[in-house]
Amino acid sequence: MFQHDLFVRNYSQRFVNELKDFVRIPSVSSQPKHAPDVKRCAGWLANHLRQIGLENVRVIDTPRHPIVYADWLHAAAGPTLLVYGHYDVQPVEPLDEWRTSPFEPTVRDQNLYGRGACDDKGQLFAHVKAIEFYLRNSRRLPVNVKCLFEGEEEVGSPNLKPFIARERRALGCDTVVMSDTRMLGSDRPAITYALRGALSLELEVKGASGDLHSGNYGGALHNPLQALCGIIARLHDSRGRIAVPGLYDRVRCWSRRERGYMAHFGPSDKEILRHAQAIRGWGEHGFTLYERTTIRPALNVTGITGGHQGVGGKSIVPARAVAKIDIRLVPDQEPAQIEQLFREQVCRLTPVTVRSEVRTFFRTKPALVNREHPAMRAALAAYRHGFGVAPVFVRSGGSIPVVNEFQELLGAPTILMGFALPDDRIHAPNEKFHLPNFFKGIETSIAFLREIAQGVPTERQPYTIELR
Amino acid sequence: MFQHDLFVRNYSQRFVNELKDFVRIPSVSSQPKHAPDVKRCAGWLANHLRQIGLENVRVIDTPRHPIVYADWLHAAAGPTLLVYGHYDVQPVEPLDEWRTSPFEPTVRDQNLYGRGACDDKGQLFAHVKAIEFYLRNSRRLPVNVKCLFEGEEEVGSPNLKPFIARERRALGCDTVVMSDTRMLGSDRPAITYALRGALSLELEVKGASGDLHSGNYGGALHNPLQALCGIIARLHDSRGRIAVPGLYDRVRCWSRRERGYMAHFGPSDKEILRHAQAIRGWGEHGFTLYERTTIRPALNVTGITGGHQGVGGKSIVPARAVAKIDIRLVPDQEPAQIEQLFREQVCRLTPVTVRSEVRTFFRTKPALVNREHPAMRAALAAYRHGFGVAPVFVRSGGSIPVVNEFQELLGAPTILMGFALPDDRIHAPNEKFHLPNFFKGIETSIAFLREIAQGVPTERQPYTIELR
Repeated sequence: MFQHDLFVRNYSQRFVNELKDFVRIPSVSSQPKHAPDVKRCAGWLANHLRQIGLENVRVIDTPRHPIVYADWLHAAAGPTLLVYGHYDVQPVEPLDEWRTSPFEPTVRDQNLYGRGACDDKGQLFAHVKAIEFYLRNSRRLPVNVKCLFEGEEEVGSPNLKPFIARERRALGCDTVVMSDTRMLGSDRPAITYALRGALSLELEVKGASGDLHSGNYGGALHNPLQALCGIIARLHDSRGRIAVPGLYDRVRCWSRRERGYMAHFGPSDKEILRHAQAIRGWGEHGFTLYERTTIRPALNVTGITGGHQGVGGKSIVPARAVAKIDIRLVPDQEPAQIEQLFREQVCRLTPVTVRSEVRTFFRTKPALVNREHPAMRAALAAYRHGFGVAPVFVRSGGSIPVVNEFQELLGAPTILMGFALPDDRIHAPNEKFHLPNFFKGIETSIAFLREIAQGVPTERQPYTIELR
Repeated sequence: MFQHDLFVRNYSQRFVNELKDFVRIPSVSSQPKHAPDVKRCAGWLANHLRQIGLENVRVIDTPRHPIVYADWLHAAAGPTLLVYGHYDVQPVEPLDEWRTSPFEPTVRDQNLYGRGACDDKGQLFAHVKAIEFYLRNSRRLPVNVKCLFEGEEEVGSPNLKPFIARERRALGCDTVVMSDTRMLGSDRPAITYALRGALSLELEVKGASGDLHSGNYGGALHNPLQALCGIIARLHDSRGRIAVPGLYDRVRCWSRRERGYMAHFGPSDKEILRHAQAIRGWGEHGFTLYERTTIRPALNVTGITGGHQGVGGKSIVPARAVAKIDIRLVPDQEPAQIEQLFREQVCRLTPVTVRSEVRTFFRTKPALVNREHPAMRAALAAYRHGFGVAPVFVRSGGSIPVVNEFQELLGAPTILMGFALPDDRIHAPNEKFHLPNFFKGIETSIAFLREIAQGVPTERQPYTIELR
């Protein structure tokens, strides 16, 4: 009955070609110039969902980028699965570090290279192809399915939460599945059960009203770049801790048992360094690298711009300098409170000779999923089909805002079936998706739909409520 | 006999139009894409010198940008004046801060706006027009004149010194004049008698081999931007001194008399801040702002680039970060020695978790000119004609490498007749040249040529030696 293998083997070339078409659309959500591309990408995806037989396909406008919705709700008393993914992608800069153009997807050595190939177009597409399998073979799905694909994940999903809150009845479901996380290695699938929260900020330091000649004024005015460096240098102490008073107050201390579980199933320091192609670790004393990236907060400078950016030298005292800062949060830190503590600390650290300003891009809460939920068991079984081995449970250092929102607004746990490899270079130049994982992901999703039909209890009648 | 006024008044519109043509050529010497423009600018200038009647006009190629030479050597036993200037300009970035395009020179409120309008095309051109005055009126000059206009001043004049060394006999002269410095204010002309040296460096900090996801790796790897900030923050101590061991060892301590002279004739802290449009000063304790920018060394970060540069946020731990650093030097610091001290300090400050590399763009020695030289007296008289007042002697915080080289190689003092105003925004967006100073500069130069003919003794016969 479930001829996964045959289905995937027969159509793999077509699947890859379709995914290439999907990746080719430069749906960079953070850059205004790409807004029309994001919209075009939503249209492409909606059209594809319609073609494979999903119903009620909608492209729903938001104040920024649209949400794509589709469903199939004829499984009567069966449970309802909400498939979540995002079709927007990260910026591609620095462009000159790409071996092939980010939006001309290219296959090399069983990998599909391109921005979004892995994060998240390729992973999202594995579920779409699993749905296609059922609709093509039997014109029905083993469970009720709702697809919710957003175009703002890479900018902190500003409009998704209001949408879910407004449509919480129509989006009602028993389980959410999404694939936007990582495996531990090629044959080591993993289900992520914890995610860090995030605060995305910008810190600007301002000096004189314009750039000045560094010969004429150098030594007599505080250089905003130098002042910015002074502030940033003082945001960590000598033991690798973030030097923002109060920031650690609500950080949860995990039991020795939990930390033992993490040490056993999680990646070792050596593995993390190998995947990062780095030689040495760094960070908070007293914690493994895996712990530092999952159960401990982190403050990262993701970019600095100030003064002369071009080739060669230029003799100026720049008027301003800007740093982009990313703070990762863990249970039970509150993003808004941490933002306030950061702002207060920047005030304290800003010398009187310059002015500083902090701007907030977005805030995301950390999330935890119960490892004992029936849908987790269904996922374990599905992985045995798709990958031939059971996955391990891991924590991720990344942030997926919607996981917490699905829990809070829909009361549904999210099963994070990641098909990305640690070296897939998501967010970086030469992002790729390992195609064998794409195919195994499709098979795992096919099995998952069947498993939750049997294993997850439901009390809802999802087909009675329509999106407003 | 010297109808300066009439000459300038009658032809001022033509002079401005010619200067506009000169400014229109984007001769940015530091940016390879502009190399053909630099060459074109040299050709334009040479052609202009030929048109006004100078002889032996040559465009001399160097490994990078050409030198323009011309002379008139028929003043027999009279002294020889070498007129130096540079026709190359600074980069224009950030372009969006220009009110009008940097290479479409525009007159507003008696100012000519454009990159190079003041530094140094406009100032150089004042001397060219003074030479034209004599050749047009009497077909002869009161002194022997050699013009030497380079195209590499803004990149540290890498090929000028070898050229002067090679052609020291042909370039032999009694006095050098150049206009590439500032007045104290609109009616306060100044002759600069001291210049700082400069070291232009680039400091790169490298982490992992590529950008990494800040969610997945944030907290476990040393962020190169953060490490760079840590290094830069430690390059100054809490008293505003440069924290590079040994850097102050050879800094000359000036007498109370000299510092008193500076306090009397130099700009006050208040004036310096007003010109910089800054609210507060900063820097080395125990020195006035004027002293900090002239008799004390300064270390400036002129640019930092690292990580995400575009709009919005991007979740990465960047692989590398680069700072451009400009160190200004004073007598008796040796640029090569200071460079070595800086490199050693960067080594000491670089944590083991990252790698650092220092690259040198150029080095310039500081320079001093004797205020008692006869050519200085000639200049004082010339200013009384041109500006109606005597200039004051000031020190500049900027660097003009060639001043030291003229002294060392030709044995000639350089008279630095600056016609730039403090708010002319040289090196910055909206650079301008105050046109009344252009016209007064022409008159001053006309008078100067006559004054040195009478006041400066000579023993050389310059016309006997030709450029090789």
